[in-house]
Amino acid sequence: MSMPDDKILPHATGEAAKTVEKHKEPQDLVFYAGWFCPFVQRSWITLEERGIPYEYKEVNPYKKEKHFLDINPKGLVPAIEYKGKALYESLILCEFFEDAFPDHAPHVLPKDPFDRAYVRIWVDHVSKVIVPGFFRLVQAQEPEKRQQALEEYYTALLKLSEQVKGPYFLGEEFTLVDVALAPWAVRDYILAENRGYSRDAVGKGWKEYAHQLETRDSVVRTCSDKEHYAEIYGRYLRDEAQSEQAKATRDGRTF
Amino acid sequence: MSMPDDKILPHATGEAAKTVEKHKEPQDLVFYAGWFCPFVQRSWITLEERGIPYEYKEVNPYKKEKHFLDINPKGLVPAIEYKGKALYESLILCEFFEDAFPDHAPHVLPKDPFDRAYVRIWVDHVSKVIVPGFFRLVQAQEPEKRQQALEEYYTALLKLSEQVKGPYFLGEEFTLVDVALAPWAVRDYILAENRGYSRDAVGKGWKEYAHQLETRDSVVRTCSDKEHYAEIYGRYLRDEAQSEQAKATRDGRTF
Repeated sequence: MSMPDDKILPHATGEAAKTVEKHKEPQDLVFYAGWFCPFVQRSWITLEERGIPYEYKEVNPYKKEKHFLDINPKGLVPAIEYKGKALYESLILCEFFEDAFPDHAPHVLPKDPFDRAYVRIWVDHVSKVIVPGFFRLVQAQEPEKRQQALEEYYTALLKLSEQVKGPYFLGEEFTLVDVALAPWAVRDYILAENRGYSRDAVGKGWKEYAHQLETRDSVVRTCSDKEHYAEIYGRYLRDEAQSEQAKATRDGRTF
Repeated sequence: MSMPDDKILPHATGEAAKTVEKHKEPQDLVFYAGWFCPFVQRSWITLEERGIPYEYKEVNPYKKEKHFLDINPKGLVPAIEYKGKALYESLILCEFFEDAFPDHAPHVLPKDPFDRAYVRIWVDHVSKVIVPGFFRLVQAQEPEKRQQALEEYYTALLKLSEQVKGPYFLGEEFTLVDVALAPWAVRDYILAENRGYSRDAVGKGWKEYAHQLETRDSVVRTCSDKEHYAEIYGRYLRDEAQSEQAKATRDGRTF
C-alpha cells in the first residue's frame, strides 16, 4: 500500500527549517509553500537570493485550507498573497519578484534585453524538456522505458550543459536558468539511487555545474533533510503519486 | 498521398502579403517568419501592434537555408536577427520586443507588476492547455478521440473566457494574452468545418471575444487568405503533418 499523499511530513527539516523559522513574522508578502516541492523551491530560492522580506506559510497541497483556496482557487503551491491579491506558478512568481521589487539586488534576470531573452530560452528548455524528463524517468516502471527515459534525460541535460559558461549558466551571475534547474540538481540522487543515473555519464561539465547549483547558499538554505525527500519520491518511483505533476506525467500531458 | 511539407506555398497572400510588401527594406531587426505559422503570427502581431521597424524574411522551415541555420541552429520560426545575434520562441520574442523597444507604445505587457504576472498566468494557460488542445483536436482520427478532444478544447476555452473583461482579456488594453491566443481564434474555422466545433458551444462570451481578436487590425494585417491555411491544415487533419508541433502532438509530448 502506498502512503497517501495527504500524510506527508507537514513541515521542513534541516537547513530549510531554520529558514522557515526566520520567516515567521507577518509581512506584506505571504509565501505559500510546500517544503518538499521543487517548484516551490524555485520561488523560495529567488526570495532568499534577493533578500525580499516574506512570511513563510506551509501548505499541504493535498489538504487545502479554506483561506488558501479563497485566494488561490487553483490550490497549487507555490503561491503568494501580496496586498490582498494572489498569484501562483513558480517562474511567474520569480518574474513578479523582479517586477515588484526592482530595488532588491541581485536580480535573477539580466538587464540586457538580449541576455534576458537568452535566459528565458533556456528556462524554457528546463521547463519543457528537463523537468518532464526527470518525472518520466522517476515514474518509469518497465526496464526498456527506464532506459529510454534515462537516455532522454542525459540528452536534455547535456544540451544545457554545453551552454554553461561557468560557474553558473551565464557566468558569474546567478540567473533564472540556475534557479529553475537547481531543485532538480538537488534531487538527482534519487535517480542515482534508483534509476542508474550518474552525473558523470552526462558529460560536458554537468557534474561541476550541478555541484555549483546545489552548494549555492540560497539553494542550501531551502533544502530539507534528504531522508524526507526519499519518503516523497517513494510514491513517484512506484508511480503511485497523486500530485498534478505525477498525474500529468502518467497521462503524457504537459503540467 | 499527402503533399510533403516542403512543398508549401512559399509566400503570404491577402492582407499578410501587403504587410510583407511594406517590410522589405533592410532594418536592424530581421524577422524570420513562415506566413502560415500561428507561432510566427504571435510575434508578428506584436511587431505590428507596437510599430517596431522590422524586415520580413520568409523561411520555409522544412527547407532551411544555411544563413538561417547559422544564426538559429534550432532552425525554427519565428526567429529574429538583431545586432548580429539571434533569438527564437514566439512568446520570448514578444517579451524581448518589450525589453528592447521600451519606447514603442502601446505595450503588450501592462506596467503594474501584478497585472503583468496575471497576464503571464493566462498566457501560460494558452500555451499549456489551449494550444496543445487545438492540435490534439485537429490531429484526432477516431470518433471517440475526436469527441474527447472537442470537449477538452471547449473546457480550456471556457476557463479563459470566464476571465475576459472585454473587449479584450484585460479590458480595453490589448495584451499578450490576446496576442498569444489570436492565431488560434483565426484558425478555428478549420475545427468548425472538420471537427464539429462551434464558437457558440463554448459559451461565456467566447464568440464575442474571438470576434474581437480576429478583427483587431494587427491580427487582420498578419492573416493570409483562408484557402491557403486549408492546404496546410489538410495534413494535420489527416495526422500526416511533419512539423515539430505535429510530431509532438502525436507522441503526447510537449512542444
